Amino acid sequence: MITVGIVGGTGYTGVELLRLLSCHPEVQLRAITSRAEAGRRVDALFPNLRGHVDLCFTDPQDGALERCDVVFFATPHNVAMRSVPALLSAGVRVIDLSADFRIRDAALWETWYGETHACPDLLSEAVYGLPERHRDALRGARLVACPGCYPTAVQLGFMPLLAAGLADPHSLIANAASGVSGAGRQASVANLLSEAGDSFKAYGVAGHRHLPEIRQGLEDSAGEPVTLTFVPHLAPMIRGIHATLYARLNEQGRASDLQSVYESFYADEPFVDVLPAGIYPETRSVRGANICRMTVTVPQGGDIAVVTAVEDNLVKGAAGQAVQCMNIMLGLDERSGLSQPGLLP
Amino acid sequence: MITVGIVGGTGYTGVELLRLLSCHPEVQLRAITSRAEAGRRVDALFPNLRGHVDLCFTDPQDGALERCDVVFFATPHNVAMRSVPALLSAGVRVIDLSADFRIRDAALWETWYGETHACPDLLSEAVYGLPERHRDALRGARLVACPGCYPTAVQLGFMPLLAAGLADPHSLIANAASGVSGAGRQASVANLLSEAGDSFKAYGVAGHRHLPEIRQGLEDSAGEPVTLTFVPHLAPMIRGIHATLYARLNEQGRASDLQSVYESFYADEPFVDVLPAGIYPETRSVRGANICRMTVTVPQGGDIAVVTAVEDNLVKGAAGQAVQCMNIMLGLDERSGLSQPGLLP
Amino acid sequence: MITVGIVGGTGYTGVELLRLLSCHPEVQLRAITSRAEAGRRVDALFPNLRGHVDLCFTDPQDGALERCDVVFFATPHNVAMRSVPALLSAGVRVIDLSADFRIRDAALWETWYGETHACPDLLSEAVYGLPERHRDALRGARLVACPGCYPTAVQLGFMPLLAAGLADPHSLIANAASGVSGAGRQASVANLLSEAGDSFKAYGVAGHRHLPEIRQGLEDSAGEPVTLTFVPHLAPMIRGIHATLYARLNEQGRASDLQSVYESFYADEPFVDVLPAGIYPETRSVRGANICRMTVTVPQGGDIAVVTAVEDNLVKGAAGQAVQCMNIMLGLDERSGLSQPGLLP
Amino acid sequence: MITVGIVGGTGYTGVELLRLLSCHPEVQLRAITSRAEAGRRVDALFPNLRGHVDLCFTDPQDGALERCDVVFFATPHNVAMRSVPALLSAGVRVIDLSADFRIRDAALWETWYGETHACPDLLSEAVYGLPERHRDALRGARLVACPGCYPTAVQLGFMPLLAAGLADPHSLIANAASGVSGAGRQASVANLLSEAGDSFKAYGVAGHRHLPEIRQGLEDSAGEPVTLTFVPHLAPMIRGIHATLYARLNEQGRASDLQSVYESFYADEPFVDVLPAGIYPETRSVRGANICRMTVTVPQGGDIAVVTAVEDNLVKGAAGQAVQCMNIMLGLDERSGLSQPGLLP
Repeated sequence: MITVGIVGGTGYTGVELLRLLSCHPEVQLRAITSRAEAGRRVDALFPNLRGHVDLCFTDPQDGALERCDVVFFATPHNVAMRSVPALLSAGVRVIDLSADFRIRDAALWETWYGETHACPDLLSEAVYGLPERHRDALRGARLVACPGCYPTAVQLGFMPLLAAGLADPHSLIANAASGVSGAGRQASVANLLSEAGDSFKAYGVAGHRHLPEIRQGLEDSAGEPVTLTFVPHLAPMIRGIHATLYARLNEQGRASDLQSVYESFYADEPFVDVLPAGIYPETRSVRGANICRMTVTVPQGGDIAVVTAVEDNLVKGAAGQAVQCMNIMLGLDERSGLSQPGLLP
Repeated sequence: MITVGIVGGTGYTGVELLRLLSCHPEVQLRAITSRAEAGRRVDALFPNLRGHVDLCFTDPQDGALERCDVVFFATPHNVAMRSVPALLSAGVRVIDLSADFRIRDAALWETWYGETHACPDLLSEAVYGLPERHRDALRGARLVACPGCYPTAVQLGFMPLLAAGLADPHSLIANAASGVSGAGRQASVANLLSEAGDSFKAYGVAGHRHLPEIRQGLEDSAGEPVTLTFVPHLAPMIRGIHATLYARLNEQGRASDLQSVYESFYADEPFVDVLPAGIYPETRSVRGANICRMTVTVPQGGDIAVVTAVEDNLVKGAAGQAVQCMNIMLGLDERSGLSQPGLLP
Repeated sequence: MITVGIVGGTGYTGVELLRLLSCHPEVQLRAITSRAEAGRRVDALFPNLRGHVDLCFTDPQDGALERCDVVFFATPHNVAMRSVPALLSAGVRVIDLSADFRIRDAALWETWYGETHACPDLLSEAVYGLPERHRDALRGARLVACPGCYPTAVQLGFMPLLAAGLADPHSLIANAASGVSGAGRQASVANLLSEAGDSFKAYGVAGHRHLPEIRQGLEDSAGEPVTLTFVPHLAPMIRGIHATLYARLNEQGRASDLQSVYESFYADEPFVDVLPAGIYPETRSVRGANICRMTVTVPQGGDIAVVTAVEDNLVKGAAGQAVQCMNIMLGLDERSGLSQPGLLP
Repeated sequence: MITVGIVGGTGYTGVELLRLLSCHPEVQLRAITSRAEAGRRVDALFPNLRGHVDLCFTDPQDGALERCDVVFFATPHNVAMRSVPALLSAGVRVIDLSADFRIRDAALWETWYGETHACPDLLSEAVYGLPERHRDALRGARLVACPGCYPTAVQLGFMPLLAAGLADPHSLIANAASGVSGAGRQASVANLLSEAGDSFKAYGVAGHRHLPEIRQGLEDSAGEPVTLTFVPHLAPMIRGIHATLYARLNEQGRASDLQSVYESFYADEPFVDVLPAGIYPETRSVRGANICRMTVTVPQGGDIAVVTAVEDNLVKGAAGQAVQCMNIMLGLDERSGLSQPGLLP
């Protein structure tokens, strides 16, 4: 059995990791840390885990993490980077679900996250945990930087177009809507049911922290610079991200059968599902499941390709993808612990 | 007092007209027709109207409509066009909230609505009921074609840019999300709370009936052909439309202060509210109110303008705008009966 | 015009007072106070009020409140009692929407609210603002204690039974569900959309602060002690309270036509609506409206009467009822400013 | 492997059976029937099942059901009773999730379901599928009648009190709220998101079909007649039932430690979870999980016991409980295929 620790187990990414890992056939949960909740039973905070997780939160400094095979960081940004070097030195593999190791350029990271990076030397070692693009590098990796929720859906949706050079890389627009759980489990007025319920709004239009991460990934796929407009929205639902992606097709793109392009690109992927033409994905079809479903359309025979892609922001957009990365790192069956269908209705 | 009749009072547009008109100081509701519900009290169907509307549904053939000053059609498309000519002949003014008179080109209409138009000769007389564009033509009009819900938000959002020639008219993308009430009060599996709740999806990506209507309006504003990609989405909420609009600025557009352009354009409009830069509108801020709120942004100093605009699809996107048109047609104060703030939270 | 001030205008009761009073034909809003938000425009916090309220929040100590005819307190409990005596001395009438003056027995109040009452001498003067029971005392009152949201629905629902002595006063059960806005606009984890959405729970089963208030009111109606079990629940919606009330009928009760009893009891009440037998009220029928709708049923011909009653917790359960009290206090038309139908759907 | 068929696989109970059985380690799905959808892929109707269920709907008359080991009926009432006798004769075991075999008294059944029962002789053989009460009878049973969703929660909540004779059996009140999925996947106006969203109402107050079923079960537990008032409500959520149960304690009950009574009663039950005193269950804690969580409270030291119990109406209230029954019938591990934690948030 692989022994696993989780740092910052009190947020939504944490509880989702616990839900998935408590059912993983090859994992033993060993430690879940939270300074604020140390000593409290995990299932007192998350009653869905009663009977499934028999641990208490512990202090991150008590030495238990160093004895794990793998440690997940489900912390806000700027936390993992302070602890990761010591864990790596202790021989622990690290999967960071926060933003600390996602951007290779330390200066760019510092611009968006407002702090000096604590271990910029590790940025080049960290493997970006999007298995559909970096599966080989993930095998045996010591440090994985899991993608953000928006970046996962946006990259998966654009990748087939960009990798094949079918669209103008300066025409990209990503219009995305997220459920409120994406904002985390922090007390806030803006995310009260009374505020966010029965309403819809854009936010961060002028610039969202996921923008540089997405751009880096798309440029990797395209092999050239891209220009991207990214507008996130808040939808009155708990889970789910829906990305609506627009790209202007070039001559080759207009001549291509995009349905085939997408189906071929993801033919061997266990966790990407290209829907038949004309069937548009709903976020509820992936509720609780580690999968990204998408459809590609060229409306009215024009030259704009529209990709609509959905994922559960807490699963394929966070905890599920992290488990998928762990499976690959450790040479397990990539699907292990991730085979449940979504919950519909 | 102006005597008013409503045809098709059993849908959401109908109940919203009743809600607004029952409080309108210069209106007397005279007849509400429904073949299926004839004889039933209106407030038995819509309990919010108990104590406010004391009428029963009547048969549309009983002659009452012909004795009204104004008749609203809150019917599905392809209904109003069969009755409007006779009402006009009887001297009644008609405000049609359906699609029957929105598109000037009868052939185009027939392509999208699948039927031969019953009175194509009236298409040129019908005034398109977007007061912010056609206020003068509305004064004294006999027949008004109220815009669809999506077309209202999309046109209002793009108009300042296009009218001033600040954007490439072939670069337009309208990404919009609607509450479920936009689908009407018909029994359907897809719009059950269990299906549409806690989920988000695109629909009609390949082509939605509001597309030709929007295009016609934008071409009027631009004074030239436009190319528009329009993708509607269903959001898990009751009311509200949020339009996120993208346009590539031309040289003049990039040199303009778009905040000023928008504020000036709508400075005298009672029902359009341009928000300060950086404040993005929420649909809940217009719940129940006849207003469109919008923000214009140019992210990252690029050349894409992003306009986010919200309206209540049943008010400024339907019944409220229809009452606004009535006020203008009849020379009343344009705000009469429409001065309530939105319901927040 | 009556000049009005509001203390604590940043919560949901505050914004709802502003919504209603901004449309009240005989009211001029003069001051809205908030220490935390002093200097900020009211409509920056509540965008639905843009164009309707042109004030900024001010400091409560700046003297403006003393110059108003009426001051509403929309504050948490334990605040109003510190300021009310001075305002009354200045000749201002006070309508307190908090709990400070609802319970006549200071010792009982202190047991439930955990503090010494600052002006127990005013408790006997304060009129409990349930017009359906205390209308005469409200005329000319200086100080009104508006009922809580649950207490309004529960008392209105039980009153006809108890006043006529038709039920065992020791058999009362009040099972109630509230929308999340009842918990206020404070940042909290428990009321996040991600926590309270798509879920239902009881809370405060062992004892809720509204219990002694309800019991006091029911004992007034019954003219004798009552035994009440009160269980509140949180429903995944924004507004609305639904009370399901159970009472064991006595012999006289079993012999009565309860439909007539209820209809007669509320025949002259403008803001209580007894529905026809077999039609059960929905909270959405009162969304935004100052009305309590109810139905009485005796299931299966047994001896348990079931009353189901709904109100908008922010309107008839708070701000609307406060305006109704103001109208009565000042001799205005009781319906003034409160005549809007609910927003459905 | 056990071969399984499902009749009526197009509703919510059907899709939930498919979700659970597709992951059950000892089950092979062989047939899913639907006359209306015959020939259509199951995952075209339920996209969450893409990659998990590779079957098409088939006609129930094609003979496949007769070749299964177990057949589940997920049909409306009055359907299973017509087909069950033939299947039993063919040696198939039947688990009926509809109401056809729940009530032992055929005349009583016919009163509530409005039809002559097609095979009243099987009523005495059918085992009522509440494992916590009938586990022994389920072992080896040929025909199981799965309880309704409300009856499961109400019986589990009252059973410890009644079995120990701690409460007046004529004082029982069951106040329950259900998510909208309880109403099924039929097109209807009342269950549209626009109608049922953001609202709360009681229904069936005068008499609901689950009443005789609950009463029968409670009388079995109590060993004497009971008097029950049952009021169901519709809550604006997809899944979940919350039952709030009231009973007047007798002398023995008032002297008992109810927390211990409940904990002892369910100590060995894998799918009933008694919470610590003062912690009230939320429906979201059981979303997607086959478990009933409950709390018992005696408010204010009085003589009314309040039990609050939650379940997922589609899992422990339907499909999950049916799988639990199958496991028991066939001698499998009772927990097989049912070990997933709930989905929170």
